[in-house]
Amino acid sequence: MYTGKRALVTGGLGFVGSNLAIRLARLGAGVTIVDPCIKGCGGNPYNVRPVRDRVSIVSLDIADAEQFAGAIAESDVIFNLAGEVSHVHSMQYPERDLQLNTVSHLRFLETVKRIKPGIRVIYASTRQVYGAPDYLPVDESHPVHPVDFNGIHKYAAAMYHLMLSERGEIDGIALRLTNVYGPRVALSAPCQGFLSHFVRRLTLGQGLEIYGDGEQLRDPVYVDDVVEAFLLAGSLREPQSRVFNVGGPEVLSLNRIAGIACRLAAGVEVCHRPFPESQRTIDIGSYASDSSRIRRELGWQPKVRFEEGMARTLEYYRAEWPHYLDPDDLEPRCQLPEHRGVVRRLRYAAV
Amino acid sequence: MYTGKRALVTGGLGFVGSNLAIRLARLGAGVTIVDPCIKGCGGNPYNVRPVRDRVSIVSLDIADAEQFAGAIAESDVIFNLAGEVSHVHSMQYPERDLQLNTVSHLRFLETVKRIKPGIRVIYASTRQVYGAPDYLPVDESHPVHPVDFNGIHKYAAAMYHLMLSERGEIDGIALRLTNVYGPRVALSAPCQGFLSHFVRRLTLGQGLEIYGDGEQLRDPVYVDDVVEAFLLAGSLREPQSRVFNVGGPEVLSLNRIAGIACRLAAGVEVCHRPFPESQRTIDIGSYASDSSRIRRELGWQPKVRFEEGMARTLEYYRAEWPHYLDPDDLEPRCQLPEHRGVVRRLRYAAV
Repeated sequence: MYTGKRALVTGGLGFVGSNLAIRLARLGAGVTIVDPCIKGCGGNPYNVRPVRDRVSIVSLDIADAEQFAGAIAESDVIFNLAGEVSHVHSMQYPERDLQLNTVSHLRFLETVKRIKPGIRVIYASTRQVYGAPDYLPVDESHPVHPVDFNGIHKYAAAMYHLMLSERGEIDGIALRLTNVYGPRVALSAPCQGFLSHFVRRLTLGQGLEIYGDGEQLRDPVYVDDVVEAFLLAGSLREPQSRVFNVGGPEVLSLNRIAGIACRLAAGVEVCHRPFPESQRTIDIGSYASDSSRIRRELGWQPKVRFEEGMARTLEYYRAEWPHYLDPDDLEPRCQLPEHRGVVRRLRYAAV
Repeated sequence: MYTGKRALVTGGLGFVGSNLAIRLARLGAGVTIVDPCIKGCGGNPYNVRPVRDRVSIVSLDIADAEQFAGAIAESDVIFNLAGEVSHVHSMQYPERDLQLNTVSHLRFLETVKRIKPGIRVIYASTRQVYGAPDYLPVDESHPVHPVDFNGIHKYAAAMYHLMLSERGEIDGIALRLTNVYGPRVALSAPCQGFLSHFVRRLTLGQGLEIYGDGEQLRDPVYVDDVVEAFLLAGSLREPQSRVFNVGGPEVLSLNRIAGIACRLAAGVEVCHRPFPESQRTIDIGSYASDSSRIRRELGWQPKVRFEEGMARTLEYYRAEWPHYLDPDDLEPRCQLPEHRGVVRRLRYAAV
């Protein structure tokens, strides 16, 4: 489906974006990555090394889409994965989160709809928009009540995609991703979710910590399965729906997730700790996706079970960790060391 | 309830805000209005003339809340009605709408929660967040799917209020208002909704135009009833709910609304026209509110029937029209004459 097609991948040096870009390049697509590697967002040029000679990289913010209008014009499909994913950062620096997750997407889509009207745009949305679930598993009709700025801002961006699609200006699809894990997730950018934190600690030979009693449920999904969902959404002819949950193949407690991961890493242990204050208010309890819509309408299904996916992930970092861990910064901190600089730079580029 | 209390009313020189400020002042509250009268948003200092000597007016954008921190600190309750209401403007100038309806509210609430943690804040939300209804009447559980930027941006602001309330940082309530009409609505700022447009034309002795077949339903609510809803929400002790629909006492077709209004104005007629392109894509068909939650939990009910409310409205403008119509600008235009200036000014004040 993708051979000879041109794909634009925003956030394409980040975790999911780089895995998608690599897969697209291997399928024979012409790939342009847009990613300025904004501190804290997980972008890492090393991520696309396997296809470095086969992809173009534009080091610009998507808010500056006018400056890469040519790349937009020649694209057949856009995978829009740019943004900041940290819930914790969003509560510390809400305007930064608004800039990265909403303002920039408004500017990007305003440019896209003018330069390439009607183009398919697949947006990386998140299960986070549902907040603390009213029921499990959570389907796409579940009410939206985000528990932090990140969820609000990413929901606004998703609504841009859907509203402009209703108007026929773009052809948008939003994938609401559950917790994604796998190779190429940032380990030096903390606050990227508990799975990235687990991988970091196991890679460093440290034990795992679980907040609360550990009976909270999650349905982790391996990044290759998520990439497959993006590819299917990008090649779908006539979408019946525009919003799809993307959940994992198993629903597991945090205790079980940590137990499997520790067994794979061998020799490390799990301990329980009370919720730190910064995390407590944005905890959402148990979550599990109802992914029946994407199974039915796109024929997607997750193939990689957690044990297998986590084994592959740890294997990746066993060799590659020096590219993902700053040896001077081995203590994770939920702080953006240069956040002031980032905010100041964006302040004058905004609305 | 309000005697001796201090109330801050943002957007307090606008349509609903000024009616609320007048009522609060007459109830014996100390009222501070925050309203910079941004072009196109309906602010008009003349609106509060009846209580001019009894209210303080701060001519600042709510985004600059640090500059009126003292007024926030001494407030007992905040009525947050600042914003731009025009659907059409939002599609023409989406970044302007984002600035006025989202960015500024983020900054405002970040200041409020720091200076006056836990304060009751009642936000003027809108039925527009529901988009084209899936069913009638629309209750608060109806899915959200805004059809324009204005709806997306106002929904994000409402979510700020609710999310910060969940976290205990403010004590927020959002009222989702249906079409409001009454004295003090701007007549020179076009694109403020069809009821304002009708009043304008009748005040000028012009006939009414209806887009489409006129069988679309609405449940117009008179501004005094809306003011009452704000007052009740402001004095509620322990909210069971934080989101309330505020609908009118009758569900009427546009044909019936126009027929009643023309009869009151005497001597003008109704004609039907196809939807103009600028309006077509943001039309939502029929709408009617289910207001049973606010009736039940706040004891509110709308008292003014449309015929009575429209008679009062036309009576108001018969005497006051010179303060609401620029004689050099008697042709309504869905353009903000100075929008470029406004956007440029905001560009550097933003995120």
